[in-house]
Amino acid sequence: METKISSSKKEVIISNTGPTMLIGERINPTGKKKLQAALKEGNFEVVKEEAINQVNAGADILDVNVVAPDVNEIAILPKAIEAVMSVVDVPICIDINNPAALKEAIKVYQGKPIVNSVSGEERSLGEVLPLVKEYGAAVIGLTVDDDGIPKEAGKRLEIAHKIIERAEAAGIPREDIIIDSLAISLGADDKAGLVTLNAIRMISKELGVNQTLGASNISFGLPDRLVVNTAFLALAIDAGITCPTVNAAHVKQAVLAIDLVCGRDRLGRRYITDFRNRKNS
Amino acid sequence: METKISSSKKEVIISNTGPTMLIGERINPTGKKKLQAALKEGNFEVVKEEAINQVNAGADILDVNVVAPDVNEIAILPKAIEAVMSVVDVPICIDINNPAALKEAIKVYQGKPIVNSVSGEERSLGEVLPLVKEYGAAVIGLTVDDDGIPKEAGKRLEIAHKIIERAEAAGIPREDIIIDSLAISLGADDKAGLVTLNAIRMISKELGVNQTLGASNISFGLPDRLVVNTAFLALAIDAGITCPTVNAAHVKQAVLAIDLVCGRDRLGRRYITDFRNRKNS
Repeated sequence: METKISSSKKEVIISNTGPTMLIGERINPTGKKKLQAALKEGNFEVVKEEAINQVNAGADILDVNVVAPDVNEIAILPKAIEAVMSVVDVPICIDINNPAALKEAIKVYQGKPIVNSVSGEERSLGEVLPLVKEYGAAVIGLTVDDDGIPKEAGKRLEIAHKIIERAEAAGIPREDIIIDSLAISLGADDKAGLVTLNAIRMISKELGVNQTLGASNISFGLPDRLVVNTAFLALAIDAGITCPTVNAAHVKQAVLAIDLVCGRDRLGRRYITDFRNRKNS
Repeated sequence: METKISSSKKEVIISNTGPTMLIGERINPTGKKKLQAALKEGNFEVVKEEAINQVNAGADILDVNVVAPDVNEIAILPKAIEAVMSVVDVPICIDINNPAALKEAIKVYQGKPIVNSVSGEERSLGEVLPLVKEYGAAVIGLTVDDDGIPKEAGKRLEIAHKIIERAEAAGIPREDIIIDSLAISLGADDKAGLVTLNAIRMISKELGVNQTLGASNISFGLPDRLVVNTAFLALAIDAGITCPTVNAAHVKQAVLAIDLVCGRDRLGRRYITDFRNRKNS
C-alpha cells in the first residue's frame, strides 16, 4: 500500500516495497531548553537549524511539534510550519493534539501533510478525522484508546482496526492512514519490545497499512540507548514499520543497512552512495 | 531444543529461549599473516592471545581453525586445541574438514566439543558423522551439497533435512546438530540476505534445531561492514540463529541489545551488567 504525501515541490511515497522513509523527530521542544526558549519568544531560528540538519542527515519527512509550557500553539504552530517550509522542501508531519492549532497549521501548509495524530479515543476521532478529511491529509493513528495503551498486541490491532473503520467512514482512504503501535520502555517492562513487534506484524498482515514508530522510546532509562534503538529498529522495520520517527543523524546509516539486508536496496546503491557522501563530507 | 556442550569445567547450553551464545571466530589464519606465521613455526602464543581476548570480549564458545598453506593440520590442530584449553575454559568448536586432523584434535579435547563441520556432500557425511558419533560431539551442518550452495531457501532446508536424517541414522541425536544455512555477500547478490533469513526461518519452524551463521560474510566487499553485520545479525537472531559465529569484540554489546529487545533478557540484567563492566574496564 502506498501513502503519498507532499511538500509544495516534492512528493514522498511511503510503501513496504520502497526504501524506509525517515520522519525526523528533532523539532520537538520536550527536553530541549534552547528550543523551548526560542519558541516562547516567537523565534524560529532553532526550528530552521534543526530542519536543515535533519534533512542533511537523511530525513525524508519532518515532524513539527511546538508543545511546551507558555507556548501558544494556535499562534506558534503555523509559524513553525512556515519556518520549516522556508528552508527545506520535504513533507511535514504536523504533530499536535489541539484541533484549533491543527486547523491553523494545516491551513498554511503547502502540499499534503501527515497529521500526527488521531487515537482510538472518542474525542480524538471526533475532532481530528473531519479536519484530516477536509484538508485531504494523511494521518497517523495511535493504538491507544480511552482505556490507555493495551498491554496485548491483539488489542492494539483492534484499536488500529477501529481507527481505520472510523477514518474510512469519514471518507479518508485507507492508504492515507499510518498506524503507530507505540513503543514503551523496556526499562519498565522487559516484554515491551515483543508486544510492539507482534502488534506491528499483526497490523502489517491483517491491515496492510503503512506504519510508523517512535522507536527510541524503547530504550528510555537504559544506558547506551543507540545500541538498543538500532537493534529494535532492525526488527521493527523487518516486522512492518515503513516510516519510523527517529533522529535521522543517529540512525540513517543503520536504516540503509537494514534496507540492504532486507533486499530493498537494489545492488546496494543507496547504501554505497550514502557511504561515499559521508566520506566526502 | 537444547544443545549442551562443554569444556573440562564448564557446560554451555544453546537454546532458543536462553541468551544468544557467541562462537568467537578469531582463531582462524585466513587473512591473518601473524597467526599464519606463528602456526607455521608451531608457536601458539597468538592463538592463546586471541582466545583470551575473545573470551574477555564475551565469546561463549571458541572456534579453532588452523588451515593455512604449509601448516600440517594433523600435527598442529591438536596442539592449538591444547593451547586454547590451557588459557580459557569455554567449549571449543573444532573447525576442520580433514577427517584425520579432526580425529587427532577430538582425541585431545576435554569435554564435549562442536565439530565444524559436516555438509550435505556424500563424502563429508560418510567421513565426519562416524567421528562425531564415536566421540559424542555436537556437529555443525552446512547447507551445501555436491551441487554447491543452493540459491533457494527451500533447497537449503532440504539439505538441512538430509543432514539431520543421516546424522540421526548414525546415532547422533537431533539436539546435537546445529545448522548453518550460510550467508553469502550482498555485494555479489542483493537478495542474499533475504534468502538466508528465509532459510533460517524455515529451518527454525520445521526442524527446530539450533542454528549458527558466519554473519559477517554478508558484508564482504561492502564499506562500513560492521553496520551491515549488526543489522543482519539482529534479523538473523530474530529469525532463529541461536549461536552466531562472530568477532565477539565487535558485536557482543549489539547482541545483548538484540536479546533485550527480543524479550530474552529478564529485567535487562545482562545488558546493564555488560554496560557496567565496559564502563569500569
